[in-house]
Amino acid sequence: MKLLRVGPAGAERPALLDQNGTLRDLSALVPDIDGALLADGAALARVRAAAADGGDALPAIEDGGVRIGPPLGRIGKIVCIGLNYHDHATETGASIPEEPIVFMKAPDTVVGPEDTVLVPRGSVKTDWEVELAIVIGRTARYLDSDEAALASVAGYAMAHDVSERAFQIERGGQWDKGKNCETFNPLGPWLVTADEVPDPQALGLRLWVNGELQQNGSTADQIFGVAHVVRYLSQFMTLYPGDVINTGTPAGVAMGRPEPKPYLRAGDVVELEIDGLGRQRQEFKDA
Amino acid sequence: MKLLRVGPAGAERPALLDQNGTLRDLSALVPDIDGALLADGAALARVRAAAADGGDALPAIEDGGVRIGPPLGRIGKIVCIGLNYHDHATETGASIPEEPIVFMKAPDTVVGPEDTVLVPRGSVKTDWEVELAIVIGRTARYLDSDEAALASVAGYAMAHDVSERAFQIERGGQWDKGKNCETFNPLGPWLVTADEVPDPQALGLRLWVNGELQQNGSTADQIFGVAHVVRYLSQFMTLYPGDVINTGTPAGVAMGRPEPKPYLRAGDVVELEIDGLGRQRQEFKDA
Repeated sequence: MKLLRVGPAGAERPALLDQNGTLRDLSALVPDIDGALLADGAALARVRAAAADGGDALPAIEDGGVRIGPPLGRIGKIVCIGLNYHDHATETGASIPEEPIVFMKAPDTVVGPEDTVLVPRGSVKTDWEVELAIVIGRTARYLDSDEAALASVAGYAMAHDVSERAFQIERGGQWDKGKNCETFNPLGPWLVTADEVPDPQALGLRLWVNGELQQNGSTADQIFGVAHVVRYLSQFMTLYPGDVINTGTPAGVAMGRPEPKPYLRAGDVVELEIDGLGRQRQEFKDA
Repeated sequence: MKLLRVGPAGAERPALLDQNGTLRDLSALVPDIDGALLADGAALARVRAAAADGGDALPAIEDGGVRIGPPLGRIGKIVCIGLNYHDHATETGASIPEEPIVFMKAPDTVVGPEDTVLVPRGSVKTDWEVELAIVIGRTARYLDSDEAALASVAGYAMAHDVSERAFQIERGGQWDKGKNCETFNPLGPWLVTADEVPDPQALGLRLWVNGELQQNGSTADQIFGVAHVVRYLSQFMTLYPGDVINTGTPAGVAMGRPEPKPYLRAGDVVELEIDGLGRQRQEFKDA
């Protein structure tokens, strides 16, 4: 299923993209797309039954002009994996990590897939990163197998892990400082349930800036794949339904280019897509 | 005012500690102590009026055996400042930071001030850190003065920033990996409103392990004080009502001691206090 949330920011309602590409309102079935729903087998089964009927029993949503929000509400935490593609680690001059590198984004950085992204005041190194995001559906704590890890995954979405490199690297310590600016985590358009993503390690990821292709990778190049990442993280923290994991970005970011590096400025347009997970488009403006 | 939340984990109700030390139930006045309340001047005024009456108009809560929860619900994010005391930076062998070092804890690490804390599986370096926590009451975004920073502070609480040093430092990259284990952020007992903390840079902080004093510092030793930290962070992220900032710990942590360093194990009891902010006590058990 492709689940999503539509409507004004902060007042989105749950929806389904049916097999004909029609948006269907799920409000009568479930209050929201969130961790509570993903952990509730009975509620999910109701949605699945409606989707299996082709969605015809659900009211259609006119999609002309409707805003697509992030496909998940009440996100608990966003855990991010750094330098998780061989080609990206190489372009940044870093060695291949022996263990996943972990940092965090606050859920308040999340916006919809077509919302405006703000270049922070004082920023000269705002960068792009297309990423596969894992959405957790079952509590993950000290997992001991890849099977258990994958069983805790409700589905996948696309995340744009926008990053300010000077804030991240040149301002003293820890990366979080360059990862938590407002609007820095467009998410969506869809939460695609795991049954529709048979191999999360075989997804192409692409990103364009002003129409020019900048990233063109595959999750096959991930150093630590989805199952490993979930199992690994569960040794250090408990993952709860409604948590999100950004799994890292392939090569092609601005930081990896020769000088002058093409960092983002107001007026730039970034488009992203991941096979089967839809497409994002953001205009950048000054904060 | 001293605001708090009492009752079973996940089902706490809002309360007030009145001037006679009696717990008073605020449920009839406000739904919870959270960011929404702190940002709502009218609701806060109702609570303040009831408190000014001595709380007599509010039902008393029998405090025999009642659990004290964290004093803030629906926390948005927890931003932490590292190495923010001269004496602690010195004991760890680090140089004095030129700018605040920023890392993050997930809100799901928060427990009540007397709840059990779990030593993670595989941990051999679980450490203690008593900290002054700032609670945000007004959105803080690109603030340009210390006055504006202090005006965004709703109040203060005590946080125990429990830390696993091997996870934090020896497992590849970023500190967040050793800061987000479950139960790693006891908070409370009280949210003390800012009007009752006239000088947040003159608070003594103390921590005992099994009855032995380990930390005995003062916020006067902070490298970056409360106003500076809030103003600084607001250049990198937007702070919202209900966000928490852990402002760092003074000297005296296990990591700063000669070998064999006295890291925490199951069975240890940690007690903490900060002038005017109450007292915590946690038993440590194995996860």
